[in-house]
Amino acid sequence: ADVKKIAVIAGDGIGPEVVAEAEKVLKRTEELFGYQFETEHALFGGIAIDQTGTPLPEETLKVCQSADAVLLGAVGGPKWDNNPKETRPETGLLGIRKALGLFSNIRPAFIFDCLKEASTLKPEVLEGTDLIVVRELTGGIYFGEKFRRETANGQEAVDTCAYNVSEIERIARQAFDIARTRRKKLASVDKANVLETSRLWRETVNRIAVDYPDVELEHVLVDNCAMQLLRRPSSFDVIVTENMFGDILSDEAAMLTGSIGMLASASLGEGSFGLYEPVHGSAPDIAGQGISNPIATILSVALMFRLTFGYHDAADSIERAVKEVLDAGNRTGDIAVDKSKAIGTLAMGQLIVDAM
Amino acid sequence: ADVKKIAVIAGDGIGPEVVAEAEKVLKRTEELFGYQFETEHALFGGIAIDQTGTPLPEETLKVCQSADAVLLGAVGGPKWDNNPKETRPETGLLGIRKALGLFSNIRPAFIFDCLKEASTLKPEVLEGTDLIVVRELTGGIYFGEKFRRETANGQEAVDTCAYNVSEIERIARQAFDIARTRRKKLASVDKANVLETSRLWRETVNRIAVDYPDVELEHVLVDNCAMQLLRRPSSFDVIVTENMFGDILSDEAAMLTGSIGMLASASLGEGSFGLYEPVHGSAPDIAGQGISNPIATILSVALMFRLTFGYHDAADSIERAVKEVLDAGNRTGDIAVDKSKAIGTLAMGQLIVDAM
Ligand SMILES: CC(C)[C@H](C(=O)O)[C@@H](O)C(=O)O
Ligand SMILES: CC(C)[C@H](C(=O)O)[C@@H](O)C(=O)O
Repeated sequence: ADVKKIAVIAGDGIGPEVVAEAEKVLKRTEELFGYQFETEHALFGGIAIDQTGTPLPEETLKVCQSADAVLLGAVGGPKWDNNPKETRPETGLLGIRKALGLFSNIRPAFIFDCLKEASTLKPEVLEGTDLIVVRELTGGIYFGEKFRRETANGQEAVDTCAYNVSEIERIARQAFDIARTRRKKLASVDKANVLETSRLWRETVNRIAVDYPDVELEHVLVDNCAMQLLRRPSSFDVIVTENMFGDILSDEAAMLTGSIGMLASASLGEGSFGLYEPVHGSAPDIAGQGISNPIATILSVALMFRLTFGYHDAADSIERAVKEVLDAGNRTGDIAVDKSKAIGTLAMGQLIVDAM
Repeated sequence: ADVKKIAVIAGDGIGPEVVAEAEKVLKRTEELFGYQFETEHALFGGIAIDQTGTPLPEETLKVCQSADAVLLGAVGGPKWDNNPKETRPETGLLGIRKALGLFSNIRPAFIFDCLKEASTLKPEVLEGTDLIVVRELTGGIYFGEKFRRETANGQEAVDTCAYNVSEIERIARQAFDIARTRRKKLASVDKANVLETSRLWRETVNRIAVDYPDVELEHVLVDNCAMQLLRRPSSFDVIVTENMFGDILSDEAAMLTGSIGMLASASLGEGSFGLYEPVHGSAPDIAGQGISNPIATILSVALMFRLTFGYHDAADSIERAVKEVLDAGNRTGDIAVDKSKAIGTLAMGQLIVDAM
């Protein structure tokens, strides 16, 4: 039988709680659809620093490399925030992206009907918002040379932002391919009026666009995009951009939906391999209380089924179950209007598993 | 008498129309308060490219350098968008900032009572929003070395982001000083978990903070700030950040107020010299029709009076006049609910002059 290997990285804070519910969904999928999964747990982030001295142990990388996909909870927390660079959770995150060649971060941002009111935007502005931010994830200023030097004006720090044509081409193609499966609109975001990397970005995207005459392409300057996301969120379909701009804009897009606790993300490389994780963080303030919302992690499993395994039936089943459970009025504390009626992590996970 | 010299740069698109109204306000100020202004017009941006071949003619720079302040309308437009770098309006903008040493861009973002409904945010979220973004304007990735080179993966483009301690210190001190005159809260925005320039930024801001024990300082990561501006805009007082992040966040902040057509900005150097301009652009689509909104440019004059000349009485008079005219229900097309009742640029300017 075709057994899929999934590396499971629970991580820090609420990571372990939400991942546990996602694993129940994996098990239920086996029962319902006959698929087979083999999960292997690995240490990563703060807990890995505590137990092994490094955020990304060699062993963890091996587990991921021999898996078909990775499910990640969340990493980080105040405990490690002031560590030196090498022993910080973020360093592990950048390291795993680079080591696994995850050059593309896919972040769908859409509105859950039952959470419309949770957004700070007016419901009529949000109406119909359903977009995907495709963020380049292994290039740009995140990975360029960084150093300090002494100058006449005191110490100087330097970061380097570099992009080559191949890096831009592969992410552009992926964004065009995704747009093709949707409303066929692509917004490429850059700062071509100032940055050389953005000018190369724009030239390259324009060149690739010739292969996608059916997709409508617009170029949007990053400052303007930050505004347009607020003014006309529903007009966007797919947004493609470089690493740093994508970090900022994908968070803005997620927040404006009001559904940030519910959104899943995928980080993809060449081929079908991918790392899947909720958009939300490790929420150390509520960790261990059993009140966190497992939905974003459960939906990350659905995204894994779609993008890595092609198990669309199982993905449909999960997404339908989530909708049903929410429509029936079930809420964890983060999304409950009446907090006194909120249910816990375990209860929410169980309801979804039962509804599959 | 103490005659103040003001360099007036009308620029492109609606620039000339809105600047003309601002000049009427200058004249009225002379009559009402006895101050004296000497204005000198200069070419800049697209019109300068057309007439002289360069966006920032030497002569324009001289006019600015011999002035006490600069009033700028707006520059740019599709006509020049595809020009080579040296003959683009943006190049002039970056050039004038650097040449005049305007290291600090101040962008107040607040809600006009009568425009509360114009925002896409819910009124109850916006309630009390009144913040200032202090953006570093002559450093960072905007001005670092840029180049292309051939690599095995095709052409590569490189931008360099650099900051030295002096650059960070002067903008940090200015932001702390401004916070001191307000609600005494400063949010310093960086990406210290990834960038070396951000780590130097944070260290330096922390060091300067020792001199401002009365100002409450928080460090916010740029992606988180893009979210928090949406979630809790009214909790911010002063935000200080580097050039590229400031470009994005100040536009997001301006847009969320719903008042972007009404906001003024100041670009300041050492001493009292400053360049003042509306936050909005040159709006080529409505240029020449006499329907543009001159309020942001008129309020830029008020900001000039406060920050460069210390003419607080005249600034008060302008700001009160604008409020009165708006409260009486007068609207230009961009801010009118009933567009058929909208008044034009000239009429709006005249009403404000009369109300001073
Ligand atoms: C933690 C940080 C390094 C990371 C990033 O900036 O990529 C995070 O913000 C994200 O978006 O995954
Ligand atoms: C036109 C452009 C170069 C400029 C900038 O990025 O600084 C503009 O967006 C601004 O904010 O003044």
